[in-house]
Amino acid sequence: MEGQKVSEHIPDIIAKGNTEEINKVLSTLQPFEIADLIQNLEFEDQSKVINSLDNETASEVILEIEPEARKEILKKLDLKEIAELVGEMESDDATDLIGELPDETAKLVLAKLPPQEVEEVETLLKYPEDSAGGIMQKELIEVRQDSTVSEAINWIRLIADDVEDFHEIYVIDQKERLLGVISPKKLLLTNPRTKIKNIMEPFEINATPFMDQEEVANLFEKYDIVSLPVIEENGVIVGRITADDVIDVITEEASEDMYHLAGVQEYLHPIYTPTSTRVKLRTPWLLLTLLGELLIAFVIIYAFKATLEKVAILAAFMPAIMATGGNVGIQTTTIVIRGLGMGTIHVGELRNLILAEVKVGLAIGLICGLVAAVIGSIITINEPKVAKLAIAVFIAMVSATIATSFVGVAGPLTLYKLKFDPAAASGPFLTMFNDLFGSVVYLFIAMIIF
Amino acid sequence: MEGQKVSEHIPDIIAKGNTEEINKVLSTLQPFEIADLIQNLEFEDQSKVINSLDNETASEVILEIEPEARKEILKKLDLKEIAELVGEMESDDATDLIGELPDETAKLVLAKLPPQEVEEVETLLKYPEDSAGGIMQKELIEVRQDSTVSEAINWIRLIADDVEDFHEIYVIDQKERLLGVISPKKLLLTNPRTKIKNIMEPFEINATPFMDQEEVANLFEKYDIVSLPVIEENGVIVGRITADDVIDVITEEASEDMYHLAGVQEYLHPIYTPTSTRVKLRTPWLLLTLLGELLIAFVIIYAFKATLEKVAILAAFMPAIMATGGNVGIQTTTIVIRGLGMGTIHVGELRNLILAEVKVGLAIGLICGLVAAVIGSIITINEPKVAKLAIAVFIAMVSATIATSFVGVAGPLTLYKLKFDPAAASGPFLTMFNDLFGSVVYLFIAMIIF
Repeated sequence: MEGQKVSEHIPDIIAKGNTEEINKVLSTLQPFEIADLIQNLEFEDQSKVINSLDNETASEVILEIEPEARKEILKKLDLKEIAELVGEMESDDATDLIGELPDETAKLVLAKLPPQEVEEVETLLKYPEDSAGGIMQKELIEVRQDSTVSEAINWIRLIADDVEDFHEIYVIDQKERLLGVISPKKLLLTNPRTKIKNIMEPFEINATPFMDQEEVANLFEKYDIVSLPVIEENGVIVGRITADDVIDVITEEASEDMYHLAGVQEYLHPIYTPTSTRVKLRTPWLLLTLLGELLIAFVIIYAFKATLEKVAILAAFMPAIMATGGNVGIQTTTIVIRGLGMGTIHVGELRNLILAEVKVGLAIGLICGLVAAVIGSIITINEPKVAKLAIAVFIAMVSATIATSFVGVAGPLTLYKLKFDPAAASGPFLTMFNDLFGSVVYLFIAMIIF
Repeated sequence: MEGQKVSEHIPDIIAKGNTEEINKVLSTLQPFEIADLIQNLEFEDQSKVINSLDNETASEVILEIEPEARKEILKKLDLKEIAELVGEMESDDATDLIGELPDETAKLVLAKLPPQEVEEVETLLKYPEDSAGGIMQKELIEVRQDSTVSEAINWIRLIADDVEDFHEIYVIDQKERLLGVISPKKLLLTNPRTKIKNIMEPFEINATPFMDQEEVANLFEKYDIVSLPVIEENGVIVGRITADDVIDVITEEASEDMYHLAGVQEYLHPIYTPTSTRVKLRTPWLLLTLLGELLIAFVIIYAFKATLEKVAILAAFMPAIMATGGNVGIQTTTIVIRGLGMGTIHVGELRNLILAEVKVGLAIGLICGLVAAVIGSIITINEPKVAKLAIAVFIAMVSATIATSFVGVAGPLTLYKLKFDPAAASGPFLTMFNDLFGSVVYLFIAMIIF
């Protein structure tokens, strides 16, 4: 809210170009507020703001800007400026940013960084963006098991500037293999002459560099931890993941699932994302679904025209059948996708999951089919063929709920098994399948019994 | 996976009743794995397992069990056992558990706890479950600004058993008002004779006890922090929230949004939740939507029967119009609900948000309407009134996408403004509105032009 109020005045202040006044306003704001503000400015003013900030603040602000807008801003900064900003970042953020740059620029920026940082970033660039390696940072505190507490403290003093905060101290052997962990509390309260190996605790869990970030998030949820070491197969510790990174992952994964279920490709801000981008990113699935629905129109016209001409009011119940089937399918698919995301259901239980959901689909179908048949009969009480109509509605509704329950659970699980995103287009695809199945079954039954 | 394998054998081991062997198997498992296992056992075996665990492990296991199952297990434990388990928990978890007990039992359990713990739990019970006060814990480390580092360390030594881990040390004045924070690193590296007030840093952000938990989660996301102090209006620090609690909140809130969008009331496990519960919790919204859809049938029969009898193939395009409108609405509503959840859009921008979404809805409607009209004309090329049909399809599709865009953004924002959950039933409700609007507009236009 505060950021918004300030942002009303700041364009004027920036237009006047008084650096001192700009700094005064900005110094009262948090990096994410400055980022919000920048995204609403004209381009020349954006670089004015970035340039007026000190390197540390500027690097935090850059990280808070939406990726699309960030790309544009980075294009206008020179290599030295980018390298200075990257130099201020922790290795995980630095890697993400360099990964976003065009290959040529990335190489030139890397060349301007201190050797140690280059090595860190190059190590991290090896891992996929959405793996444990992709979200971990290289900055961590390692101490040797043979040191004493006081030696460990002296070592921490030496590297304190590089490691901004720590939640665990990692104890390693001579080959850098992780042996155990020590909490800062323990270090603080233990006699300085005690050997590290006598106070360390065994580490219970760890991630591996290529572990999927969703799996990492599930570990944090299950074990209620705030940091996690990342260990290679040979036992060597290569990084750590902290809870704040995981919070971002969980938010991102949940958003992704929701957007994909709704047939939206990525987060689109109603106001900040340009209209043309929003239309472009929302239309493809809509058009694909529309083609499917037009195929339904084609089938209806060429297979069931005669039936519809004979009993026009058949059309009146098509919305009820399609909506009920569709809603049941979306319920099922949402339950399955959320269960996969939280790790509470497993693809190995495929058969049980399908059975369980189809059973529920059948029960729901019987209830809804009965309600629709009874109320449908009341509505059409004056029609000559009311009983036959009710039967068609009932059978179609039960079939539709069973079918969409089946597809709602088998669809996402199959996608997951094939290593695709289970939520990708489940929603619109399900609508299309359901509408086709529901209307064809309904009209086919009607054709037979009339 | 491991937990699953073991769970295949454990029922036998438990049936044999050999406590030693049970303990041996359980000691290899994590609390959440034991919890998973317990939920799949017969009731008598459940208490056998709980009783065979030491109090500390048992209290962790109890917290990992699903609320429904936990209720049943707690019913069979006596007051002393419950009090022992609660005594092992941190104040936030203890409060949640006591809040789940029947009032009478809760009072009796409280009576068996140590006075300090009773006070903590009673303070926390004042706050709503989904507020900062409801998720915070009372255990934290406070030091006076006038103490020296060495005095502070001695104080931490004294209370170390109560506060399991800490990420920040809170500096207070004589009235317990928060003045600043110190990181464990700083304490570790500073000369013991230094005064606390000389090394503390001002705290930048805090929660207030009645702040909504979603707002708290947004603070963690924006500021990339792992713990946050909770401060009353008078500046007194009353608790702290840690990142692991926030991870649970974010997962819970995201799940809730997804379920509500799909018309599911709460998380239903396809296999563990009984079929009857799943049917009971999924059917209400389906039936409500079905009634709406049957109202559509009623309207079609009594207002448009003649039109449909005249041009039966009108029915063929109803699925396409309803599905496109519905999909656009679900896209919009998902974007709005996720934006509200992440704090990236504000209800104060209502007018701009509606304008922005309706603009996109219009663009999408024009594209889809055109595609549908062209392909529709090709499909129906042999019909006498192909042009009129295409016009009806086009107008209906554009109207439907505009209308559902409007409802998709105005609906959740209005619910949010009225302090209801914006996602509550947005999905099924939207389907119903869209089907009614789409079919009526379509048939009404058809009635006029034919």
